[in-house]
Amino acid sequence: MNIDHSVLSEFVSDLFQAVQVPASHAERIAELLVLSNLRGIDTHGVHRLKVYLKRLSTGMITAKGEMKRTEIPGTPMGILDGDNAMGFLVADEAVSYAVEKAGEYGVGLIWAKNSNHFGSAGLYSMKAAEKGMVGIVSTNVPPLMGMVNFKGSIVGNNPLAISVPMRDHPPFSVDISLSSVALGKLLRAMQEGSSIPDTWALDTQGRPTTDPKEGYAGFLLPMAMHKGFSLALALDLLTGVLAGGPFLRDISSMYKDPEKVSSITHLIIVIDPSRIMDMEDFYQRMSLWKDELHSIVSEETGETLHIPGEGLAATEAERRRTGVPLSSALLEELRELALTYGVDVPEWASPE
Amino acid sequence: MNIDHSVLSEFVSDLFQAVQVPASHAERIAELLVLSNLRGIDTHGVHRLKVYLKRLSTGMITAKGEMKRTEIPGTPMGILDGDNAMGFLVADEAVSYAVEKAGEYGVGLIWAKNSNHFGSAGLYSMKAAEKGMVGIVSTNVPPLMGMVNFKGSIVGNNPLAISVPMRDHPPFSVDISLSSVALGKLLRAMQEGSSIPDTWALDTQGRPTTDPKEGYAGFLLPMAMHKGFSLALALDLLTGVLAGGPFLRDISSMYKDPEKVSSITHLIIVIDPSRIMDMEDFYQRMSLWKDELHSIVSEETGETLHIPGEGLAATEAERRRTGVPLSSALLEELRELALTYGVDVPEWASPE
Repeated sequence: MNIDHSVLSEFVSDLFQAVQVPASHAERIAELLVLSNLRGIDTHGVHRLKVYLKRLSTGMITAKGEMKRTEIPGTPMGILDGDNAMGFLVADEAVSYAVEKAGEYGVGLIWAKNSNHFGSAGLYSMKAAEKGMVGIVSTNVPPLMGMVNFKGSIVGNNPLAISVPMRDHPPFSVDISLSSVALGKLLRAMQEGSSIPDTWALDTQGRPTTDPKEGYAGFLLPMAMHKGFSLALALDLLTGVLAGGPFLRDISSMYKDPEKVSSITHLIIVIDPSRIMDMEDFYQRMSLWKDELHSIVSEETGETLHIPGEGLAATEAERRRTGVPLSSALLEELRELALTYGVDVPEWASPE
Repeated sequence: MNIDHSVLSEFVSDLFQAVQVPASHAERIAELLVLSNLRGIDTHGVHRLKVYLKRLSTGMITAKGEMKRTEIPGTPMGILDGDNAMGFLVADEAVSYAVEKAGEYGVGLIWAKNSNHFGSAGLYSMKAAEKGMVGIVSTNVPPLMGMVNFKGSIVGNNPLAISVPMRDHPPFSVDISLSSVALGKLLRAMQEGSSIPDTWALDTQGRPTTDPKEGYAGFLLPMAMHKGFSLALALDLLTGVLAGGPFLRDISSMYKDPEKVSSITHLIIVIDPSRIMDMEDFYQRMSLWKDELHSIVSEETGETLHIPGEGLAATEAERRRTGVPLSSALLEELRELALTYGVDVPEWASPE
């Protein structure tokens, strides 16, 4: 079943307001959450509503959090205290702050601390690109990656997203997490009863496993092993350690530790290309770069090389027309959430 | 055979001076090149002398290049024109420039264009860390990575290095390139007659191969496939495209295109933690971070978890005492280079 994104967004906003999030905040969170669905990143969309609402209703996320900027005078850097509000709001405000700084200094670096899960990192790097700027976004997240021969999780699969604007074309946009795969892939293999490559996960004893059940009970492995592991540590330093927030195993999981505040730290870097060269020249160069990649065609499949970000944009254009597809399981969950939090079940979500 | 690093450095400096590099520049290049050997990164040390000297002597690298800074007023950003000098000099100067900017603005971003191969990226991020600052270093490099089903190389295995200072402990330092492995690993497999994983390289037709010979004739694959590929594209944008230098397949290889200027672009970002928090607090936090990782011990092997950068520091300490090990093949090459460029063969390099 496909739902118009603005209709879905309105319902999502109602749910957030039901757990005491102020209306303007609830609307923005809903917009960003549904934007992930629009772009086809359904794993980071309304699928996550349940855990966010739960944490808001139990006070693990502060519904009426009041974010506060702390300037570092004479620098393009600043700290945003998220006051434990929804990560979507905190990261969104941090990008606005960084864009302001970049307007003044050509670059802005904002550390957003006391924040929470913010959905997909690409939401925020792309927001910078929509303003004609380069966006670089990372965050530390609860530890869920281990290393071969070590028991236990050590560091998060901290994401890194980079977006660069183009003219008359979707921005270049990469958004990766540093684990080999997401937990969802282990779940799917479990459902299908298939085995997994031994580079995906460790069992509880720290041994690589090809059994998705063992891997799910154990720990994810970093992408490209030591490379991904080292990069995840570096991002933990650049976010939590550098801004005075929690790091490594002091970060709580919103799933595993339902009764603990998460407190993660985002880093947003925004660069204004117009301070380096004429914006016209910059877009011209981006166009040449894009055209060169598009000139590469596979003899094997006939396909043109795909530029990261194009797929998202195509899906978004499509779903803005045709609506956001929701599975019947997800619809059922939305109905339950409406009942739990005392929101009217909209007609489109009612059972047939 | 082990050679004292300062003795080796003096000889290397003589060789650079023999191809018209000014003495002070030659000394600094030699120091950085030998530093790679000291740290155990022998693939990026004197092993590369031959190609650097060749390019300097044929004018493909400018021996007396005169670097020039271009300020971007009111910003912590600047452009360094490398004038096609040795990449070691250009990157070294770019870090100094970025550290100055960070002293003023808390952060510095320097793009160094018209540069050349600079050895290992970690040399420069660690230089920032030695000054108590965070160093982030990347560069675009000639294209040598492909993607499955596409013929030809598309983008370089652009490196990314991040170093963070600690007190009374070597800096955290990660330095990765974005290919699955370096070409050297294919060479070794060829010598050993062993097969390679199909995630390392493509044959000339763009098909994954387990034959190192086919892979060597073909193209490297990115680490973690699409993740590494997308990240390499992002770094190409953040370096060459953003600073007005060559990008993608317009960058020439110092090996494959001996008669073309290379012209790569480095990006150096330096952050001064003391502008974010008291430096004492910062080092205290780094110490807690380090101690937490060191508390993780493998039940399987009894080993403590290794923090990236510790291995380099241990090797450096060892080799500063015992000298830089040189194979007889490398000694032979050094002798030949001395003869070619009219430098006296030092006694330690003479055949027995």
